[in-house]
Amino acid sequence: MSLLAVGSIAFDSIRTPYGNVEEILGGSATFFSVTASWFTSVSVVAVVGEDFGEKEFQIFRERSIDTRGVERVPGRTFRWMGEYTGDMSQAHTLDTQLNVFQSFVPKIPAAYLDTQFLFLGNIVPTLQLNVRRALPNLRASALDTMNYWINGMPEDLAEVLKTVEILLINEGEARMLSGQSNLKKAAAIIQKLGPTVLVIKRGEHGATLFAPESVFTVPAYLLDEVCDPTGAGDTFAGGFMGHLARTGDLSDANLRRAAVYGSVMGSFAVEEFGVGRLLRLTLAQIESRYREIKKLTHFDA
Amino acid sequence: MSLLAVGSIAFDSIRTPYGNVEEILGGSATFFSVTASWFTSVSVVAVVGEDFGEKEFQIFRERSIDTRGVERVPGRTFRWMGEYTGDMSQAHTLDTQLNVFQSFVPKIPAAYLDTQFLFLGNIVPTLQLNVRRALPNLRASALDTMNYWINGMPEDLAEVLKTVEILLINEGEARMLSGQSNLKKAAAIIQKLGPTVLVIKRGEHGATLFAPESVFTVPAYLLDEVCDPTGAGDTFAGGFMGHLARTGDLSDANLRRAAVYGSVMGSFAVEEFGVGRLLRLTLAQIESRYREIKKLTHFDA
Repeated sequence: MSLLAVGSIAFDSIRTPYGNVEEILGGSATFFSVTASWFTSVSVVAVVGEDFGEKEFQIFRERSIDTRGVERVPGRTFRWMGEYTGDMSQAHTLDTQLNVFQSFVPKIPAAYLDTQFLFLGNIVPTLQLNVRRALPNLRASALDTMNYWINGMPEDLAEVLKTVEILLINEGEARMLSGQSNLKKAAAIIQKLGPTVLVIKRGEHGATLFAPESVFTVPAYLLDEVCDPTGAGDTFAGGFMGHLARTGDLSDANLRRAAVYGSVMGSFAVEEFGVGRLLRLTLAQIESRYREIKKLTHFDA
Repeated sequence: MSLLAVGSIAFDSIRTPYGNVEEILGGSATFFSVTASWFTSVSVVAVVGEDFGEKEFQIFRERSIDTRGVERVPGRTFRWMGEYTGDMSQAHTLDTQLNVFQSFVPKIPAAYLDTQFLFLGNIVPTLQLNVRRALPNLRASALDTMNYWINGMPEDLAEVLKTVEILLINEGEARMLSGQSNLKKAAAIIQKLGPTVLVIKRGEHGATLFAPESVFTVPAYLLDEVCDPTGAGDTFAGGFMGHLARTGDLSDANLRRAAVYGSVMGSFAVEEFGVGRLLRLTLAQIESRYREIKKLTHFDA
């Protein structure tokens, strides 16, 4: 089934213990759509500047991603500069230039109006709400957000949360949104705000899925090297929503499988800078790592 | 099969957001032995002071723990005072009084010499080595240690590590011991130091078992309230070693089951201050929580 991603497209400059890169393709809509393209057909609504050219669009086309919703406007594309040190669990932002993203107003092409699955990347909650309202035929919509909106625009965020079925956030954000440090209690509070499916992303510790019927934990795949954690959360979301859209199945068992695919795809994302590894995947590699996570977690009842 | 624990017995004073307690029974040998007593017969080698009386010994007797190896000497019992705040993932030590523990020299009663499973709690590495050498008939021995010995007595620690099959440490300790921040690489380095079975404890994120044949992750059971994390690591070790000693089975599949029992028992430990909850368990409750962790981690292949 069709899947639409709304979010950012950016040029990222990143320093990690494994090296530095300058102005490589990034942003939530990029990581999400490249990932989900391994599962289903994906379209993107985002904004880029005049410095975003044929070469960059070609990356999306390679993965058959529909970019008719990517608006190209005068000005420069969103730029982010960040650094990871030590255990690399946290990015330190060195510079943010919103540029054309500052005045981003998502416009949904008519061809996208019958989309069935939606991912609302981390943008202003009021814009997320407008997109959600413009799409009447959704089977499920997922939302990402961040501390900045949880603290700064709690009423707007509350409005859009009422309209989505799935929320994907990290541990700190879950604690902030709920006002609860205990994750189980935090989840129960958040599941009453709208999204009955809550995925709490825990970085190198994997993720916990709070579904209507049960709770499920999936570990992160153990890697020899984590090169660049940028985009891992959006990549998890791409695997999760990609699998749900591919199958059209929102059962408890399939939500669990979707979370495993999220972890699988996140583990590929961090192996290289940007979307490099995500572009060079095969379906066999994805299935193989899914089985590896099964081996990593299996024990006799 | 028989299981011997060597470690500390202490009086703990603890402050958490859930309350304060003064001078309750604690220490690595206490948490370990009370836990393992649900799985097999356990004996303890430790030292206490004159302030350790019939009431305290009675707690061990209630669980049929053999305390003939608990030496009572002039002076006061080891005391520890600590505080947990915020997400409670770290204890802040407020006061430590080693007292009789300062000059602890483990003495193994003759009746214990044929013990088959051994847990060396976190004490001076040279003392751990002496105990290990005094027990020729072991099927498997496990060791805990800490940053203090990793940094302060690396050569002594290296000696005892060569003699044990199992090492249980936390993430930070694994990184320090190996000099590697990546956990998979850290594990590979540590497994060459002696212990072919490495359990890396990750607190609220569960644990990862690096066994000779495979890697396994088990989550922490999700609780509504974590009252007091003190002793959770020794309790994990008690469930892990208790199950191994009960079954006498060191296969890959059984090491995985043992890690799940470790997580199960750790989750009970933190529900109340001290060993309170661990004393009031039933085997049915233990099995029920084991099945809960199965549900928490199961997904279709």
